[in-house]
Amino acid sequence: MASQFGQLFRISTWGESHGGGVGVVIDGCPARVPLTEAMIQKDLDRRRPGQSKIVTPRAEADQCEILSGVFEDQTLGTPIAVLVRNKDARPSAYEEMAVKYRPSHADYTYDAKYGIRNWQGGGRASARETIGRVAAAAVAKQVLSRLVPALEIVAYVKSIQDLEATVDPATVSVDQVESNIVRTGDPAMVDSMIERIEAIRSDGNSVGGVVECVVRGVPPGLGEPVFDKLDAALAGAMLSLPATKGFELGSGFAGTQLTGRDHNDPFRMDGDRVRTTSNRSGGIQGGISNGEPILFRVAFKPTATIMTPQDTVSTGGEDTTLKGRGRHDACVLPRAVPIVEAMTALILCDHLLLQRAQRLD
Amino acid sequence: MASQFGQLFRISTWGESHGGGVGVVIDGCPARVPLTEAMIQKDLDRRRPGQSKIVTPRAEADQCEILSGVFEDQTLGTPIAVLVRNKDARPSAYEEMAVKYRPSHADYTYDAKYGIRNWQGGGRASARETIGRVAAAAVAKQVLSRLVPALEIVAYVKSIQDLEATVDPATVSVDQVESNIVRTGDPAMVDSMIERIEAIRSDGNSVGGVVECVVRGVPPGLGEPVFDKLDAALAGAMLSLPATKGFELGSGFAGTQLTGRDHNDPFRMDGDRVRTTSNRSGGIQGGISNGEPILFRVAFKPTATIMTPQDTVSTGGEDTTLKGRGRHDACVLPRAVPIVEAMTALILCDHLLLQRAQRLD
Amino acid sequence: MASQFGQLFRISTWGESHGGGVGVVIDGCPARVPLTEAMIQKDLDRRRPGQSKIVTPRAEADQCEILSGVFEDQTLGTPIAVLVRNKDARPSAYEEMAVKYRPSHADYTYDAKYGIRNWQGGGRASARETIGRVAAAAVAKQVLSRLVPALEIVAYVKSIQDLEATVDPATVSVDQVESNIVRTGDPAMVDSMIERIEAIRSDGNSVGGVVECVVRGVPPGLGEPVFDKLDAALAGAMLSLPATKGFELGSGFAGTQLTGRDHNDPFRMDGDRVRTTSNRSGGIQGGISNGEPILFRVAFKPTATIMTPQDTVSTGGEDTTLKGRGRHDACVLPRAVPIVEAMTALILCDHLLLQRAQRLD
Amino acid sequence: MASQFGQLFRISTWGESHGGGVGVVIDGCPARVPLTEAMIQKDLDRRRPGQSKIVTPRAEADQCEILSGVFEDQTLGTPIAVLVRNKDARPSAYEEMAVKYRPSHADYTYDAKYGIRNWQGGGRASARETIGRVAAAAVAKQVLSRLVPALEIVAYVKSIQDLEATVDPATVSVDQVESNIVRTGDPAMVDSMIERIEAIRSDGNSVGGVVECVVRGVPPGLGEPVFDKLDAALAGAMLSLPATKGFELGSGFAGTQLTGRDHNDPFRMDGDRVRTTSNRSGGIQGGISNGEPILFRVAFKPTATIMTPQDTVSTGGEDTTLKGRGRHDACVLPRAVPIVEAMTALILCDHLLLQRAQRLD
Repeated sequence: MASQFGQLFRISTWGESHGGGVGVVIDGCPARVPLTEAMIQKDLDRRRPGQSKIVTPRAEADQCEILSGVFEDQTLGTPIAVLVRNKDARPSAYEEMAVKYRPSHADYTYDAKYGIRNWQGGGRASARETIGRVAAAAVAKQVLSRLVPALEIVAYVKSIQDLEATVDPATVSVDQVESNIVRTGDPAMVDSMIERIEAIRSDGNSVGGVVECVVRGVPPGLGEPVFDKLDAALAGAMLSLPATKGFELGSGFAGTQLTGRDHNDPFRMDGDRVRTTSNRSGGIQGGISNGEPILFRVAFKPTATIMTPQDTVSTGGEDTTLKGRGRHDACVLPRAVPIVEAMTALILCDHLLLQRAQRLD
Repeated sequence: MASQFGQLFRISTWGESHGGGVGVVIDGCPARVPLTEAMIQKDLDRRRPGQSKIVTPRAEADQCEILSGVFEDQTLGTPIAVLVRNKDARPSAYEEMAVKYRPSHADYTYDAKYGIRNWQGGGRASARETIGRVAAAAVAKQVLSRLVPALEIVAYVKSIQDLEATVDPATVSVDQVESNIVRTGDPAMVDSMIERIEAIRSDGNSVGGVVECVVRGVPPGLGEPVFDKLDAALAGAMLSLPATKGFELGSGFAGTQLTGRDHNDPFRMDGDRVRTTSNRSGGIQGGISNGEPILFRVAFKPTATIMTPQDTVSTGGEDTTLKGRGRHDACVLPRAVPIVEAMTALILCDHLLLQRAQRLD
Repeated sequence: MASQFGQLFRISTWGESHGGGVGVVIDGCPARVPLTEAMIQKDLDRRRPGQSKIVTPRAEADQCEILSGVFEDQTLGTPIAVLVRNKDARPSAYEEMAVKYRPSHADYTYDAKYGIRNWQGGGRASARETIGRVAAAAVAKQVLSRLVPALEIVAYVKSIQDLEATVDPATVSVDQVESNIVRTGDPAMVDSMIERIEAIRSDGNSVGGVVECVVRGVPPGLGEPVFDKLDAALAGAMLSLPATKGFELGSGFAGTQLTGRDHNDPFRMDGDRVRTTSNRSGGIQGGISNGEPILFRVAFKPTATIMTPQDTVSTGGEDTTLKGRGRHDACVLPRAVPIVEAMTALILCDHLLLQRAQRLD
Repeated sequence: MASQFGQLFRISTWGESHGGGVGVVIDGCPARVPLTEAMIQKDLDRRRPGQSKIVTPRAEADQCEILSGVFEDQTLGTPIAVLVRNKDARPSAYEEMAVKYRPSHADYTYDAKYGIRNWQGGGRASARETIGRVAAAAVAKQVLSRLVPALEIVAYVKSIQDLEATVDPATVSVDQVESNIVRTGDPAMVDSMIERIEAIRSDGNSVGGVVECVVRGVPPGLGEPVFDKLDAALAGAMLSLPATKGFELGSGFAGTQLTGRDHNDPFRMDGDRVRTTSNRSGGIQGGISNGEPILFRVAFKPTATIMTPQDTVSTGGEDTTLKGRGRHDACVLPRAVPIVEAMTALILCDHLLLQRAQRLD
């Protein structure tokens, strides 16, 4: 539903790149969960612009304010509204885009849909829109940490263009990922990835890649049969992120090369726990978590806005060319990592609450 | 939401593999749309078991009955209930599965979630569940054909294991696809694909592949920003299908190898219509259709149930082995084609109705 | 949402008065709840036509069939589909209504909305539509009896026209209500109410009244602030019933005659339990149950279809007259009692599941 | 759903009486609807405290800020966030209420539900919560005025305690209602109603009454059969307002005294328009508007917080007494008038959009 998401832990995000600000309202958060602005700010800082030399230089502190739903550092059970003001808006950089569509961006489709468009900074199609998601997910993580303390969500850059990281999903930690500005889980690839991004940006070009995400400590039984399978929910959540082009779980597309005999994950008892000896299922079977780590990958295309002249058309219907201006990431991957984690946290929190409602024992 | 789907064109599916039957209730279908049981039956016949030598031999005519919502062959605007009885149920074939979990199937996770499971034929996790989807989509197609007569949805088998078809999305037709039992769009690959499936089945094994789907004639402007992007909705819908492991739109995962300069789709005027000269976007930009063909691929894993002994555990918590019984597809791809089309039709119908509500002119 | 209802315990009803049948699909029912067709049939029998001399003589056994979601007399957690076939349909009795609108019925408005209408028996606007609700509520009651064994829902006829029953909400029981065919809780009023209904029917006329409902044993804390207040949910549920014109909780409209000093319910401790010494709030404060009995009243208008000629217009736009035919209740109140209970059970079941999801301790 | 409301025109309200502020996010508003802060402010001024001598003296300008979704005074189709800061908060007035429950207020039930409560000013249970509704409805009215220019929503005080106004729903205008501070439609009752409120307030007491609302110019066909009947939606919306105890449509509870012969509304042609010669249906038949004026009444109880000592209990479980402090309306009716109109506008806007989606011609 447009800018609303979730069934029990429901969020409603709002805001354009240029305007009063961006934010989110969370309805359905359980009461008495510890919550402070600092807890939200920590995650916003991971996604904010200007955090390193390889991301967009737009200078936004992205300072959040909790407007409601919290009393003496605890949630009230009522809606939690979070506001982040836009500060460093520069609409003048976008004036040419008021009358020309950026190729592979949302400019034309917004006009086709609405007959109107806030051309300043991409409006609602700006990556700035994800602030509301990250803020809401920071709250979801507090709920998760109370319900499933052992749960760990770790996303990392798996590849940038042809540069592929080697990462062990069983052990990779958020600290390892946060220790480098490109947010890969493979120390050996950090320098080459940074060099690639810098070279591409110097050339006025852009580049994409793949984010991989592992969730360890998921209890078995999350996810609903049929339409709200846990993997379906994750796929929908990931493809709702800007610049995404694909999603795969476990063995993914490569798994289509195997036969059933090689692809199936055998069950074995591990003490009194049912485990699988391989995890091509990616932790989800029949749409429901099986207790093994959930593992999935998300493809991010190269950033659409580039500093090179490209063929396009004007809003008046004439062929023309456009060269990007404004401040943009030449590669969204490093900033995509916390956003992928955020959507994962929102899905898991919602499904945990659903499961609590339905399981009578 | 579990077994409910859609916002305006809302469906509620029900039914297990073995039991009274399967079906769907459609709420929100516009009135005065022509509808007969024959229109639904046509699509059910494309997905039914026993339709060819390469699919499961379970003998189900899957005859549908419209129980409500239709009067003198027109929809009433009230809920349309469709019922298909189960006929050829053989619970005895599943008795061993009552106490042993099939690897990579939903047996264990259903038990983990619900503490109970209809072990006969896989219950709700059976592909038989998709009958309700296909029946509902047959109705959605009638709505679509009234609102967008030029719309064409064509899915086809793109690959089976390493056998890859060469298909032109611009021209491939449903008739071409339906002309061969494997439902590929490439005549040159028909025989080898059939041979592969037969060989794999003879070996008590199974195999997967990729279904590609193209939608031509989509009006620009469908899809909602942020969470209900058209590609997000499609990704969620496709991953809700049994045995799926991945989804990609347009350039997909391969697109991460390109730079922005090579990946972006330039705009050019085509008369008074805005077109792109390439379609790496796959017909969707910023989550909204741009009028170019929508093109996506879905990965289907090899069927979990195979006729070979595999390691597993019992419901009592002991290591054991299990060899599949019952009647199963050694390759779900041929029957997946109409199901992928069905989910696509449901998504497009819903988004068309949404757009009608929101567009004031 | 048209024919769908509930957030976690979600039902989707379907069916017209004349056609294949009527029924419901329940999605979101917890697993391992005991359920048999007999449990549902018991409640269907309380609302079925032909059950006594003062209700419509249409001869329908209303025999239900559970098509899915139950295995060995326990719910599976998957959708429960219930089907009741229409048997004693007499479309010929309605032929005049195909071209003339019954005053104060839904004939004209269905045509205005849909441009089409199943004129046989009132189609979806028939009271027959409530079968799906009653069947779903029978399931909800099984869930309630597991979660809150002490919960009692008792509805009864409070008045028929000017005949008003004296009933003590604290003690009235379902058995008392079921002991008389008019379903009032006041033995002294049974005969006069029955006489009134029979006299009115003999005169080709109809009559309305008020159903009162008490719910004892409700745990405090059910209901959501703001839009989904428990009383708002009950009001919406009751006004969704055919022929209803009003809803009031506790002191209701009469409470507007009191001042705050006389209207407020003082709190007093009763052991370690917080109680109120009066209950003008009707068991709900700020939209949330306070543990006192929930008490509300629903106004039902006189049946619209009467056996007397009335002014009306034709579908062709001409003034004309129409005299009712077909089989109708001259007074819906006795059959409304189980339906009011049913909607109450659906609301309470849904809110109990919601509260389980949100309450972390 | 707690603090979310609407299906296509969806709002998410937030905010407590004391805290950062209150507001709303509107998702699903069509694009290119004229919108300025002044349009919203006009309605907020009608509901704000301190507007006259008979309402609460809390000094809040309730100045709104549109944070998103509007560009150059037109809606963008994206979420519209509206913020109103709390200014004149006086938490000290509520300190006693931190440990004692106000009778017939939401204090106890919030504690029972959440185990925590913002006791300052009633938190989310404050009438201040309705600011988000009124702001959203101001936007809905802009949509309505584009889609149905002739539509008029007029609410007015029908009675205060036993003082009943005589108002003609066919002609009463917003200007007439706004011409007096008590907001009744009967000039002859203005003085006595004001005197009653002032006398009651001087006595430290409170009083309730009835608001009546008429909607003229409603197109036939709005409302959905079964659960989302237009009257069911209105009933649910009205009972979601603070202090409401009852709802009745058209003839309401009094209609139960009539027989069908006297109660039915005969149809007659009026030119080519189908009309009824009476309107006991209140403009809605079978849950769908019939084109006649919609007419309903809402009962508001006397304000719970009074300046008189009352029996109550403490949060610690001891019997005690409490005398109200803080600033409160001795009678909520004058301020309830714009709020009843607001909920009506939200319902009608949502159903108009729904009808546009479903009606293919």
